[in-house]
Formats: sequence, C-alpha cells, structure tokens
Amino acid sequence: MKEVVVKCPATVANLVCGFDILGMALKEPYDIMKLKLINEPKVIITNKDDYNLPTEAEKNVAGVVLLSIMEKLGDNIGFEVEIEKHIKPGSGLGSSAASAAGAAVAANYLLENRFTKDELVQFAMNGEKLASGVKHADNITPCITGGVTLIRSIHPLDIVPLNSPSLFVTVVHPQIEVKTSDARQILRKEVLLKDAIKQWGNIAGLVAGFEKGDTDLIGRSLEDVIIEPVRSILIPGFDEIKTRSKEAGALGGGISGSGPSIFMLSTDEATAKSVELIMQEVFQRLGIDYKTYVTSIAQEGVSEISTK
Amino acid sequence: MKEVVVKCPATVANLVCGFDILGMALKEPYDIMKLKLINEPKVIITNKDDYNLPTEAEKNVAGVVLLSIMEKLGDNIGFEVEIEKHIKPGSGLGSSAASAAGAAVAANYLLENRFTKDELVQFAMNGEKLASGVKHADNITPCITGGVTLIRSIHPLDIVPLNSPSLFVTVVHPQIEVKTSDARQILRKEVLLKDAIKQWGNIAGLVAGFEKGDTDLIGRSLEDVIIEPVRSILIPGFDEIKTRSKEAGALGGGISGSGPSIFMLSTDEATAKSVELIMQEVFQRLGIDYKTYVTSIAQEGVSEISTK
Repeated sequence: MKEVVVKCPATVANLVCGFDILGMALKEPYDIMKLKLINEPKVIITNKDDYNLPTEAEKNVAGVVLLSIMEKLGDNIGFEVEIEKHIKPGSGLGSSAASAAGAAVAANYLLENRFTKDELVQFAMNGEKLASGVKHADNITPCITGGVTLIRSIHPLDIVPLNSPSLFVTVVHPQIEVKTSDARQILRKEVLLKDAIKQWGNIAGLVAGFEKGDTDLIGRSLEDVIIEPVRSILIPGFDEIKTRSKEAGALGGGISGSGPSIFMLSTDEATAKSVELIMQEVFQRLGIDYKTYVTSIAQEGVSEISTK
Repeated sequence: MKEVVVKCPATVANLVCGFDILGMALKEPYDIMKLKLINEPKVIITNKDDYNLPTEAEKNVAGVVLLSIMEKLGDNIGFEVEIEKHIKPGSGLGSSAASAAGAAVAANYLLENRFTKDELVQFAMNGEKLASGVKHADNITPCITGGVTLIRSIHPLDIVPLNSPSLFVTVVHPQIEVKTSDARQILRKEVLLKDAIKQWGNIAGLVAGFEKGDTDLIGRSLEDVIIEPVRSILIPGFDEIKTRSKEAGALGGGISGSGPSIFMLSTDEATAKSVELIMQEVFQRLGIDYKTYVTSIAQEGVSEISTK
C-alpha cells in the first residue's frame, strides 16, 4: 500500500507573552517520519531512536494520534510508522508535537486529504494530551501550518495564522530536565490584574508587530511579566543570556515551550550567530552540555519529502 | 491673536477584552472647542454648558492640559478656551478625553505644531488624571489620532495605531451614574491565570482581526471574561442588550469605557439600526432615560474646523 515520508519541524510554543496561545515553526531541527498504510486495524511502530520512546501504540504520541484517526474512520486499515527523531524529547522544542502533527498530516496524505486542518489539529492534540497531560495546540498548529500561529481558543478551536516576517532564530537546548508538568505546577493560579494588563498590552503589540512586519514593535513587545519570571528560575543562565543577547542586537526572546530551551529572535544572521556564541559561552562556563541552532521561522509546516 | 476651532470626537476605551490598552474614535458625538492664544500667562475658560463643569483652570480638564503646555513653554502666553459640550460627562464616551485631547491638539495648531503626537498624549493625560485620578491614554490616543489605537504601554508611552475597518457603531447612554473611580474599585486585584489566558487569546484575536480587516474574527474575539462580568452588574439591561444585539447580527460589543454607555459593532448600517431599536426598547421598558447614536469608527481624531 501507499507510503509517505514527511519532515516534521520543531516549534516554539508559549511565545514569550503569548503563553498557551502563540507558537511558531522552526526550519531546524526536524524529525523525519515514514508512514505506511496497512490493511490491518493496528499501529505498528518501528522507531529507532536513542530516547527509549515507547513503541506500544497506546503509549506512543504518534500511535495515539493514528489510533484516534482509525477510530474516526472505522475502516479495516492501520499504519506502520517509523520516526527518525532529531528533536530531543523534553527539549521544549515541540518534540511530541512533531510526532503528533507529523502522524496526523502524514496519515491525511495517505487518506487523500479527507480531513480539514482543524480536524488534524484535533487528532494531533490527543498526542499532546498523552505527552503532557494537557490538550494544548500551540506547538501542533504551527507544526502543521508553518509560520506563526495564534490559537485564540481551544474550545471551540479557533486558529489564526499570523503574518510571520523572515526572522532568524537562535536556540540553545541546555541538557537539563524540565518536565512540562513541573513547569505547569510552579505557576501561580492567580495573577495580579495589573500584570495581566501589561501582558495583554504586550501580546497585542506582538500580534500587531507580526501583522505589520514591524520588527521594532515585535522587539518592544517581547516581554513576559507573568510566566517567565517564575519558570526562568528553573533554567540556569537564562537572565544572562537574555540580557546579553539583547545587548548584542537580538530583538528579544524567552523560554521555548516550558523549557529548558531558550530562543532569541534577530533580524539578521550575523546577530543570530553572535547570540549563539553568547549561549555557548554561558553554558560552557556553567558546565552544562548544550546544543545550539541558528535557524529561521519555517513558513511551511509538516511537509512531504517523498511518497510511493 | 490666532484662534482655532476644533472638533473633538467621542471615544470608546477599554474596548471589550482590551481593558486599559485599546480604544477607538467615534464620528458622533463630538465637542466643539474654540481656542485663542492670548498674551497673558493664564487660561480663561468661558464655557457655556449644562453640566456645571468648573471654569477655574486648575480644576478644568482642558485647563490643566493648557497649563501643562504653558509650563513647558515658559513663554508669556496663555489661552482662552470655549467648549461646546455634546459628549456628556460621566457617559463613558470619553468626555474628559475630548476636552483634554482637544485642548492639546488645538494648542499645538496655534503653536505651529511644535509638539509630537506622543507629547500631545502626555499633555492630555494630565486632564485624564484630573478627571479620573489615573493617567490613562486609551481614550486620549484615539481621540488625537482617530481610528483604533493600541496603547502597548504607558511607561514608556508606546502607541500603536491599528488598521480600523469601516464598522458601524451603535451606542446607548443610559442616564444613570457610574463613577470611573467606583468602576475601578469593584475590580478584583487578582484574576485567575486561566481567565487571563482566555483574555489574551481574545485580545490577540481582536488585534489580528483589525489588522487583517477580518470582521468575523473581530466578532469571535469580542469577549471579555475579566472586567465585563464584574462591571456589567452596574448597568441594568446590559446582558439582554448584548445577547439580543448579537442575535440581530451585531459582531459584539460591551461597556464603553467604565460605563454606563454600551456599544455594539456591526458591519452594516441596517444591523446597527436594529441594534438601536433593541437598546431603545430595553431602556424604555426599564424606565431609564437614554440617548442613542448610530455612528461609525472615525478615521480622523481631533480636527480643525476653522482658524483665523
């Protein structure tokens, strides 16, 4: 039967002041997923990775997404899936979203695009639920559509693609563990109204900045007064990297997803590379292993590499 | 010496989910202000109105704005001001902002436009401080610039004009008193994080809707889960008007400023007029005097009518 190979990009969710509502797709890193239609109602996972990801369908992010698609179809079909994982699980770069969104989009290719984009997001959210306990869509949506996306609401699902200027993104993934569930737990359930007002001023400025392609406005709006002050405590070197990156000319940035990765936006590649040097210098000094990327916003989401 | 007559539009601040950060200018109602340069360092107020507004410069909104301009100039000049007031004080339609912004802009005309837009906003905020105790700019800014404006931040002042589609606005001013200071006091100092997230999803959607000219998105985003549920209690008939207006085809709306006026946005004039009938019917039934306007977003702010 038919088979497809797709590229599944990393994503930055919780885009600074856009906690839970804004995400963007990155050109790098990305996973490669091969998906094959089979005529048995089951999901076979044949991953080779270094992360000991479960290969039982019910416990695997791509697996549960595919199972939810099969349940919807009710046909006598199944899938064989193999993922070449380059986005490290737990990095805060949307590793589970890449598997979830990749599985949904790849399956849709094989099923002659019978599902809408919103339905694909709904299927893929089952994978996020498995990975983090919460059905959030701010990694999945940009992973599927590319660019910068706003999730105005989850219930009902309301996805708004935003204009995304061609910005460079520098990412550092320090090899420390920050669990999404822990990162959620340390947040306060209540916030000061005056902080919330600052935050929605910034999110409004950020959205206007993206739509207008006004990079200065994007830079001025990249401030998070609610989540970052709490979560950044879990990431050594965060404040220094942010301060020095902005001094070096970056527009700003913050924690990617729930961390520990940090990202910074720049208008030019030279600045993005200076930011990389700062990140490397800080984590070398702290004696923490790390991986860096100098990349840009991907205008395309999960995309077909080959098919047969 | 020179004299100028300007038109000072009413404004809607706290634009639904954009509490403290979003405002828009209306074509109607508006005040007419005549300002004359005099060669004595004082402000003479010769208003004729039905509202017993103070005519002592230090206690008058336009007066304190003009005094702050004179202080900045340090010259031996002053102003004679006469306001024909059509925006009722306490209506929630930016009556004090119209006086404050009008005085700043008119003075700037007479002073050969020596001040920037940001400086005019700063001067005019002195008037808002006198009127409500708080230096807010979400009425003043659209009053000066027209259209829909975002105040991303007050300190430092960061004004972002947004694209404003040509929408119709239906306004009702029920003749009840809601003091801005009372309306502030009943707000909770803390809000639930989950509500704040909903709110910034909506504000992001609203800004994207304005920028894209997507009226459906504007409509979906016109929800305020934080301020309106508390403040609407002070306005009889609010819930019924909102529900029935949306049933009649309005995009949505909410409390204008801190109330008691209510506004609703529509894409066409016929709907805006049906909304007016609903507003009239509700307040007639409640036995509350009211005034309604069917108008539209003013693309122009304070503007010169004549000069000599």
